[in-house]
Amino acid sequence: MNSFGQKLRFSTFGESHGTAIGCLLDGLPAGLQIDETYIQSELDRRKPGKSEFETARKEADRVEILSGVFEGFSTGTPIAMIIYNTNQKSKDYTNIKDVFRPGHADFTYFSKYGLRDYRGGGRSSARETAARVAAGAIAKLMLDKLNISILSGISEVAGIASDTFDYEKAKSSIIYALDASKEQAQKDAILEAKNNHDSVGGVSRVLIKGAPAGLGQPLYYKLDGVLAEAMMGINAVKAVEIGDGVLSSKVLGSQNNDAIRANGFESNHAGGILGGISNGDDIILNVYFKPTPSIFQEQHTITKDNKEVDFALKGRHDPCVAIRGTVVCESMAALVIADMLLLNMGSKMDGLVSYYK
Amino acid sequence: MNSFGQKLRFSTFGESHGTAIGCLLDGLPAGLQIDETYIQSELDRRKPGKSEFETARKEADRVEILSGVFEGFSTGTPIAMIIYNTNQKSKDYTNIKDVFRPGHADFTYFSKYGLRDYRGGGRSSARETAARVAAGAIAKLMLDKLNISILSGISEVAGIASDTFDYEKAKSSIIYALDASKEQAQKDAILEAKNNHDSVGGVSRVLIKGAPAGLGQPLYYKLDGVLAEAMMGINAVKAVEIGDGVLSSKVLGSQNNDAIRANGFESNHAGGILGGISNGDDIILNVYFKPTPSIFQEQHTITKDNKEVDFALKGRHDPCVAIRGTVVCESMAALVIADMLLLNMGSKMDGLVSYYK
Amino acid sequence: MNSFGQKLRFSTFGESHGTAIGCLLDGLPAGLQIDETYIQSELDRRKPGKSEFETARKEADRVEILSGVFEGFSTGTPIAMIIYNTNQKSKDYTNIKDVFRPGHADFTYFSKYGLRDYRGGGRSSARETAARVAAGAIAKLMLDKLNISILSGISEVAGIASDTFDYEKAKSSIIYALDASKEQAQKDAILEAKNNHDSVGGVSRVLIKGAPAGLGQPLYYKLDGVLAEAMMGINAVKAVEIGDGVLSSKVLGSQNNDAIRANGFESNHAGGILGGISNGDDIILNVYFKPTPSIFQEQHTITKDNKEVDFALKGRHDPCVAIRGTVVCESMAALVIADMLLLNMGSKMDGLVSYYK
Amino acid sequence: MNSFGQKLRFSTFGESHGTAIGCLLDGLPAGLQIDETYIQSELDRRKPGKSEFETARKEADRVEILSGVFEGFSTGTPIAMIIYNTNQKSKDYTNIKDVFRPGHADFTYFSKYGLRDYRGGGRSSARETAARVAAGAIAKLMLDKLNISILSGISEVAGIASDTFDYEKAKSSIIYALDASKEQAQKDAILEAKNNHDSVGGVSRVLIKGAPAGLGQPLYYKLDGVLAEAMMGINAVKAVEIGDGVLSSKVLGSQNNDAIRANGFESNHAGGILGGISNGDDIILNVYFKPTPSIFQEQHTITKDNKEVDFALKGRHDPCVAIRGTVVCESMAALVIADMLLLNMGSKMDGLVSYYK
Repeated sequence: MNSFGQKLRFSTFGESHGTAIGCLLDGLPAGLQIDETYIQSELDRRKPGKSEFETARKEADRVEILSGVFEGFSTGTPIAMIIYNTNQKSKDYTNIKDVFRPGHADFTYFSKYGLRDYRGGGRSSARETAARVAAGAIAKLMLDKLNISILSGISEVAGIASDTFDYEKAKSSIIYALDASKEQAQKDAILEAKNNHDSVGGVSRVLIKGAPAGLGQPLYYKLDGVLAEAMMGINAVKAVEIGDGVLSSKVLGSQNNDAIRANGFESNHAGGILGGISNGDDIILNVYFKPTPSIFQEQHTITKDNKEVDFALKGRHDPCVAIRGTVVCESMAALVIADMLLLNMGSKMDGLVSYYK
Repeated sequence: MNSFGQKLRFSTFGESHGTAIGCLLDGLPAGLQIDETYIQSELDRRKPGKSEFETARKEADRVEILSGVFEGFSTGTPIAMIIYNTNQKSKDYTNIKDVFRPGHADFTYFSKYGLRDYRGGGRSSARETAARVAAGAIAKLMLDKLNISILSGISEVAGIASDTFDYEKAKSSIIYALDASKEQAQKDAILEAKNNHDSVGGVSRVLIKGAPAGLGQPLYYKLDGVLAEAMMGINAVKAVEIGDGVLSSKVLGSQNNDAIRANGFESNHAGGILGGISNGDDIILNVYFKPTPSIFQEQHTITKDNKEVDFALKGRHDPCVAIRGTVVCESMAALVIADMLLLNMGSKMDGLVSYYK
Repeated sequence: MNSFGQKLRFSTFGESHGTAIGCLLDGLPAGLQIDETYIQSELDRRKPGKSEFETARKEADRVEILSGVFEGFSTGTPIAMIIYNTNQKSKDYTNIKDVFRPGHADFTYFSKYGLRDYRGGGRSSARETAARVAAGAIAKLMLDKLNISILSGISEVAGIASDTFDYEKAKSSIIYALDASKEQAQKDAILEAKNNHDSVGGVSRVLIKGAPAGLGQPLYYKLDGVLAEAMMGINAVKAVEIGDGVLSSKVLGSQNNDAIRANGFESNHAGGILGGISNGDDIILNVYFKPTPSIFQEQHTITKDNKEVDFALKGRHDPCVAIRGTVVCESMAALVIADMLLLNMGSKMDGLVSYYK
Repeated sequence: MNSFGQKLRFSTFGESHGTAIGCLLDGLPAGLQIDETYIQSELDRRKPGKSEFETARKEADRVEILSGVFEGFSTGTPIAMIIYNTNQKSKDYTNIKDVFRPGHADFTYFSKYGLRDYRGGGRSSARETAARVAAGAIAKLMLDKLNISILSGISEVAGIASDTFDYEKAKSSIIYALDASKEQAQKDAILEAKNNHDSVGGVSRVLIKGAPAGLGQPLYYKLDGVLAEAMMGINAVKAVEIGDGVLSSKVLGSQNNDAIRANGFESNHAGGILGGISNGDDIILNVYFKPTPSIFQEQHTITKDNKEVDFALKGRHDPCVAIRGTVVCESMAALVIADMLLLNMGSKMDGLVSYYK
């Protein structure tokens, strides 16, 4: 249940303030060159403490590969990666030991398990997503061999929406902003919330380029369905769109259908997916993050013993979890596409026969 | 890959114009009274041809149980259900044999499999969803024993949105409208599109009442993630929201957090799920359907041989696929909740020990 | 839980005396020609009532394909197959309604589910294996395209063991005997037991020819492990050997190792599998069946109310379940190999890259 | 594919001569007290270098828990355990870099993956089984709460078979011998083979006591089938029996059936499993290990370039891999039973309803 994917499956472990977090990546084809520098560079994109727009917790997030790689190449056996926690301050959390933070998973974990690791949210902390990024980096290395790329950026913060989606711009922006003309306003919104001991929501837009037509396993491991699960499963995500998404529910069929010409589709309202299967066009997702639930204003809540208290959180938190979240969206998208590529290999008899010739 | 669920798993089979469609429901506890009249009544809610707002194809959708039920009760073995197709007119489809209909899965199925059953969309037809409704009806019977109910209705058609969500009203509305004051305008929009040989999109809102806190298997079989996959995997769905969804990305943390009091949450922006686990409150989903891609206006497309043609579709189609789709949303929600209830049974040692005492 | 296989997955349904039994075969590549005559011929090999060595229950076992095949070829969607029960005599079983037959699953199903379909063993009846044979026949059609064949026969009945393994001979033997010189003695043993209202055990030997090296997913979906599960899961099987099996535990390493030469292995003690992966040599299994538990002698048993009774079974039963069981062994072996071929397609990066070129 | 189990799932990673080996155990109920001393004691039973009957490679096999345990109790999140390799001597293996050792997985891994970690067998080494023992120890802690125990011992070495099965005796025997009267002869056989640069096979007998009736998910996750897979998947295992196993194929039904009385079964030929479901009696398995393929005599083999060579292995190896293997059998049995207990929780409606009350 802490695993994702069918043929390329990753499993993660670890708590925010435990010894370490990490993952297993199982099912990766043998013979892929594993560029550890690249994996680390992906983790560096997600790691906390890089700017005032992020939590002040500083983690080196140094990843170590424990298995599955020999002489620089994947061997086909599970790749275990580990990231030791170095900057956990568990004592920060003794004050929330018996209190359920509003908007957090404290209450639900306690309901489900009867106990919880209260230190920094334990397993439910977004810290776990570092392990996804490590796995996703390897998936990206695999996709690169097939000329498939995964790009993303922040399209909206606190309702301030981008008019353009410049993925190159996003790479160099400290908040991964897709629209240079909106970046400053978005930064201001984050800092204003932060100064008010509050937080803001945001939106990540993900673009998958170069995916061949035919990916997705209908009817219950569809590409859009699995991408939706992958994104909705990221901490703080509350909505997912494919292509035009919500908008497509408001228009006419004649407006929404993508006409087809000999050299491709005339438009891409579908976001690259028809009937749950990729159509060869760009795959486009919008992923909506709620504001970080960790705020420093006083809130109504209860204790484990169901006593009502007014409670103001302390600690170190991202004022806009969508920012670092966009890197996680990319990683999850990469893992989904890599899995689908492997699953799709058996879809035609002639492909099977030629494989074994 | 044509299966859904972990512990309660259903698998479907069948094509729009094949001999039959049907499903297997595996993992249902033994001893549940199986009310066949109820199952049929659920299928009747989804079946086509009931009004001018739906396709003119008439199917009785009589479901027959082939196995897994003995003397009126589930036995713990797979329940196979079959629905014979009776009103297929395959010859309607010879004109699309070599043409890819825009907005449909024709192109992608052909890309993936190298051939396709072109009769009415074959496997990719929404006709398959009758099998989901049959399985979902049994899931609802199971949920009923735990006082959990699944409700839904149409909250929006062609951009005409409901202000109120009256699930009782929806039951008696021919278009399952949630807001009586908007129903006529929504109907008009559907008929106007139909008269223009066009189609419209719409939105289904799903309410799950009575689910206990603790459902959902973090971190990769989360309740919200699985609901998102279940909904996004329904034909024509392009976006899914949990709780406030898109809106939550635009607001502050202090606005979005649900404060907690001794008798429950003060608000429900979260839609009943925190950290991927149910919190005991109502679970709320919005599911966005694109307009039916089947329209009768002339469109640009290509043939299997990549020749460009202008093509106007014939046949019988729903002008607004969201209407009947809302019944499918309910069914999928019921199946997810039932699965999560079963999966959750092993979450605590004391629950395990007392079970085997 | 009523499904088997990862990438090629079949699911079965149905009870011995219900309306029908059948299966879904999911994950089959598109474009395989489906020879229905061949599928029926495989079912005919397993069907009951062909001779005095089998149960007197006569079932036509006519299989009908409901989905997944279009114009004679697989489409990549689930193939549903159904076999209606025609010769069930449920009233034969009213006398066992409240009694647990020794050696049968009556007691355990009742323990697990709290109720049971007592008619002919319900779901636990070997009748269900007809569905496996239908699925296995399609797997064999797929394997045939890769020049892989699955053969089997009866190597032992009631302790009377074959000295030679003549798979061609087995095809024409009414008891599928592998050794012509032992066939008569084996037949005599079966009839003697039958006349004494008793039953005998037997052994099926399975040979898989032409499987390429590299099949099997270490470490927990190994080829030998999955074959063992597949065989042990057949009704009445109590032991499974790969290659020399039990014998290899009694010898020295220098005797058991298979030396390797440029053109292959010098011996095949390993039975074609090393480290859970096929080595390109013949894969050999021995599958041990207990005597049919249905005997007509009086036995000690209890009722549902835990009352002791002496009980003599009536009805129609195979005196040696291994005979028809060998066809089921073949089918399961075919399904395992087909699944492993599909799973193995992603094991090397260069295979992946060339597939998508 | 490097994972085992459905509801309680463990995944392992690591190579014989890599940095570390380890496992993830996912799905364990929250609230189980985790006794680390006990886990280490189980690893100590399997660890190498304890006597002349085992490989001379000394590994401390110190296990460290990285996650999933908080204040001494399981939290319901994945338990990651790591064992660092300390005594690997990779240079021992440069001489086998290009040679396929007979009886080993060298040839098949190379066939499958196109490359291999040749150091000590890499992933295919029995060293990986330490991770299974760590996971199995936690499963045993869980089973202990339900008064289920897993015992085992060596019943046969080199054809020298036990007449009695004394599991208490086995605990104190350096070769885990079940029959004190055969222990010395068994030891002598091992040392004689060792002195001849050869190896011997052996048999482990496993006893599961206290398992309730009802475990096992028919029809394709049967208890016997899954136990067979679990055992056959252990390095060097070539045959698995349940109960009387091979013997049951040689006898009459009247001899093999276990009569039932009000207080239980009169015999246990079935080995505690009927129809794939536990019957409440002792569950008994026999697991047959081939002789260690690593022998120091000269053997025929080939190189990666398909050149024939005569080759004598060097290094450190167990002369009888069954000895330490019996501990692994216990661990796998414990993991299977624990998984089945969790899976079985949803088998009856009344169990479900009372769970959620």
